[in-house]
Amino acid sequence: MAADDQIRDAAEEEDAEIRDEEGRLVAEFVDDVAEAIGANDAERVRELAADLHESDLGDLIETLEQDDRPKLVELLGKDFDFTALTEIDETVRVQLLEELPPETVAEGVRELDSDDAVYILEDLDEAGRARILEQIPAPERIALTRSLDYPEDSAGRRMQTEFVAAPEFWTVGHTIDYIADARELPDTFYEVFVVDPTYKLVGSVPLDRLLRSRRSKLLSEILEEDPRTIEATEDQESAARTFERYNLVSCAVVDENERLVGVLMVDDIVDVIEEEADEDLRALGGVTSDEEISDPVIYTARSRIPWLLVNLATAFFSASVIGLFEATIEQMVALAVLMPIVASMGGNAGTQTMTVAVRALATQEIGGHNARRLVRRETLVGLANGAALAIVVALIAGLWFKNAQLGVIIGCAMVVNLVCAGLFGILIPLGLDKLKADPAVSSGVFLTTVTDTVGFFAFLGLATWWFGLGGPS
Amino acid sequence: MAADDQIRDAAEEEDAEIRDEEGRLVAEFVDDVAEAIGANDAERVRELAADLHESDLGDLIETLEQDDRPKLVELLGKDFDFTALTEIDETVRVQLLEELPPETVAEGVRELDSDDAVYILEDLDEAGRARILEQIPAPERIALTRSLDYPEDSAGRRMQTEFVAAPEFWTVGHTIDYIADARELPDTFYEVFVVDPTYKLVGSVPLDRLLRSRRSKLLSEILEEDPRTIEATEDQESAARTFERYNLVSCAVVDENERLVGVLMVDDIVDVIEEEADEDLRALGGVTSDEEISDPVIYTARSRIPWLLVNLATAFFSASVIGLFEATIEQMVALAVLMPIVASMGGNAGTQTMTVAVRALATQEIGGHNARRLVRRETLVGLANGAALAIVVALIAGLWFKNAQLGVIIGCAMVVNLVCAGLFGILIPLGLDKLKADPAVSSGVFLTTVTDTVGFFAFLGLATWWFGLGGPS
Repeated sequence: MAADDQIRDAAEEEDAEIRDEEGRLVAEFVDDVAEAIGANDAERVRELAADLHESDLGDLIETLEQDDRPKLVELLGKDFDFTALTEIDETVRVQLLEELPPETVAEGVRELDSDDAVYILEDLDEAGRARILEQIPAPERIALTRSLDYPEDSAGRRMQTEFVAAPEFWTVGHTIDYIADARELPDTFYEVFVVDPTYKLVGSVPLDRLLRSRRSKLLSEILEEDPRTIEATEDQESAARTFERYNLVSCAVVDENERLVGVLMVDDIVDVIEEEADEDLRALGGVTSDEEISDPVIYTARSRIPWLLVNLATAFFSASVIGLFEATIEQMVALAVLMPIVASMGGNAGTQTMTVAVRALATQEIGGHNARRLVRRETLVGLANGAALAIVVALIAGLWFKNAQLGVIIGCAMVVNLVCAGLFGILIPLGLDKLKADPAVSSGVFLTTVTDTVGFFAFLGLATWWFGLGGPS
Repeated sequence: MAADDQIRDAAEEEDAEIRDEEGRLVAEFVDDVAEAIGANDAERVRELAADLHESDLGDLIETLEQDDRPKLVELLGKDFDFTALTEIDETVRVQLLEELPPETVAEGVRELDSDDAVYILEDLDEAGRARILEQIPAPERIALTRSLDYPEDSAGRRMQTEFVAAPEFWTVGHTIDYIADARELPDTFYEVFVVDPTYKLVGSVPLDRLLRSRRSKLLSEILEEDPRTIEATEDQESAARTFERYNLVSCAVVDENERLVGVLMVDDIVDVIEEEADEDLRALGGVTSDEEISDPVIYTARSRIPWLLVNLATAFFSASVIGLFEATIEQMVALAVLMPIVASMGGNAGTQTMTVAVRALATQEIGGHNARRLVRRETLVGLANGAALAIVVALIAGLWFKNAQLGVIIGCAMVVNLVCAGLFGILIPLGLDKLKADPAVSSGVFLTTVTDTVGFFAFLGLATWWFGLGGPS
């Protein structure tokens, strides 16, 4: 055992050195691995990478050059833990899987918990998936195929089909002995599900409760009745809310007949929460949710251009509003200098409101009971901040162009635009949500269209009217 | 037991009805509770709310009018679960705690796990906290004070000081018997920590492994050596990355002498992950992270205005760039109509790059090894999309103003601005990160300043030079 300890210690030491303070992989370590791969030195590669945690191994794969990735897997052979593939970007994963022989992948996937196996297979195209599945023996293949039949992003896709279930009439002692002796148990579990003979869920017993109960007690006496369940077809985001709301670490997944079919684990839910928050953030920034930093230039450029084209259309629309006032601008160029200020402040204030609204909708904090209050609040905030900014802008603009009236006009336009920004900043996300569209994706375009148009129109229109200049042509 | 069952069933039924399909509280239920509070009907309030899950109770409190909240707590009396306070917005919590008598709060807080107690107490001001702490008996008070001494947002603040620890020489059987008999155990736990006599962490044994091992085995034989640990002073965000990276459900927290002082649980980490993603998103939207949708108008307006003032300064700066070209615009008003298009497209493209960069920095996906590659990629994406958009814009603008040369000029300005947008969209967040500033908070302002300034300057400057109009004044 002492020798074993030393080996472990050595491994841990390597492990401690591969990440820097900020938690990023150390460049020297990556270079060492790349060098060993280049030299086809299987022993050195194993020495460096065989004992890595799946997550570190995943990061290592991402960091390596594309050609070195399949070589790493082959050089590691039996020592390569396919779980690492769940930790890497989709683009990298799909590429790597396509380059590996299907038998290697099939063998690796068989070793995994079902949820990890599904996670790896789901991104492949029909043909690639079939090539791998046909290498897997029937019972496991059927279980995998069943999970893959659930809709994308559903709880059924994320669930693990291995779990511990026991009948109500078992005693605590019997259950503990069963667990100690059983061979085919999931790698990790936190509760024992109590089921009736038709596999309907009756209750659950967390392991700590099992350990704290007398051996002679029946499971039926200590089980938590009607535990929270998640339907297999339910969206993973809604499953994540259930985990979060009720502080769960695992949760039973049931089919449409309320039969237990799997279990969702909190580590997968953590990934879902991170993914969903990421999606909102990217959507607000105009980036698609599947873009990854390892993507090549062409792919990235192509995935970003639709959003830019949509924005271009709205930009031309607000330009056409300015076009209405060409005659006015010709007579008073100061207006052209100042007009972007009104539009951009409206955009900024509206974005503040929209950000709050989009997040509150995503976390289900807005309901019928407080929507009206929020609309009122945001409008009033727009009015308050509009008034405050109006004074500042009026003073600066008035002094700059030595024209007090111009100051008053830009101030008024500012108030109008910030009230609109607050009002539409909340109404647009609420409306899109009502229409079952994702408010994070398109609120921004609509909002900028409103704040630009209102900003230009209010400012140029007021100026035309006040100074009696050549109005809309 | 049958009667007990029926009561539970009834409670579960209520429970099933209080949320609609979307997971929001049903308005009728909230109205029923508000009515019972108005009528001072303690029995009815208990009937409706005593059996609620802490999370549902928390949402109920938030939804009630401010005056009804302390009344609900008082009417529920002993049946009020203070854990619910960990589920509500800070503003609501602080307000409610200030309105309740300190003895009530002290008594409620004593019932909680230490991490929840700290969570509730940490937001109160010095005096309010002292008033409550002095009502709590010494041993518990000392433990709470010690946790509160750790820096805000550190692992020490979030940890639970109750855990199960055992010496190496215990057998599995002895440990299981100990857990069955011990009185003072945490409410929930997933692993037994193995410690030496000085409380230094030697290893950990997950409960499922404990259950799967022979009773005669020693803990030293089955423990996981050198388990991941988190330092009590470590930032909660970095602790969250450790949980996420290594798929943990609980993790030992150690002090500077590597002694076990507490345990972090995944449910708290889920909240941290959600909070941190939220912070990034809000920062990008120009909203402070502590703004909550239950905040009143004045508070909201005041917290948002600093960001607007910063943006106002940059708006005036880019306006001053336009001011340089007043003479040019006077001679060709079409420039004033088109210039916001160039600026806004740069802003949109830059935001796409910045969003990806900010998120990748937050999730530690950018390191020394790929930063240079990313800068090159983003610049090339800017060039590609700039060229594509340039063609579209040049055609539309040329046709609109029946001036092909104007089309060429706006096209060239577009390419210049989108390349800059890509370059600065990545360099600004990277630079801020190097300077240890939070890239999510201020990248946006710097970026808009660049894209507006470059956009206006490139377009108006090119036009001035090309058409030989009155140049910068």
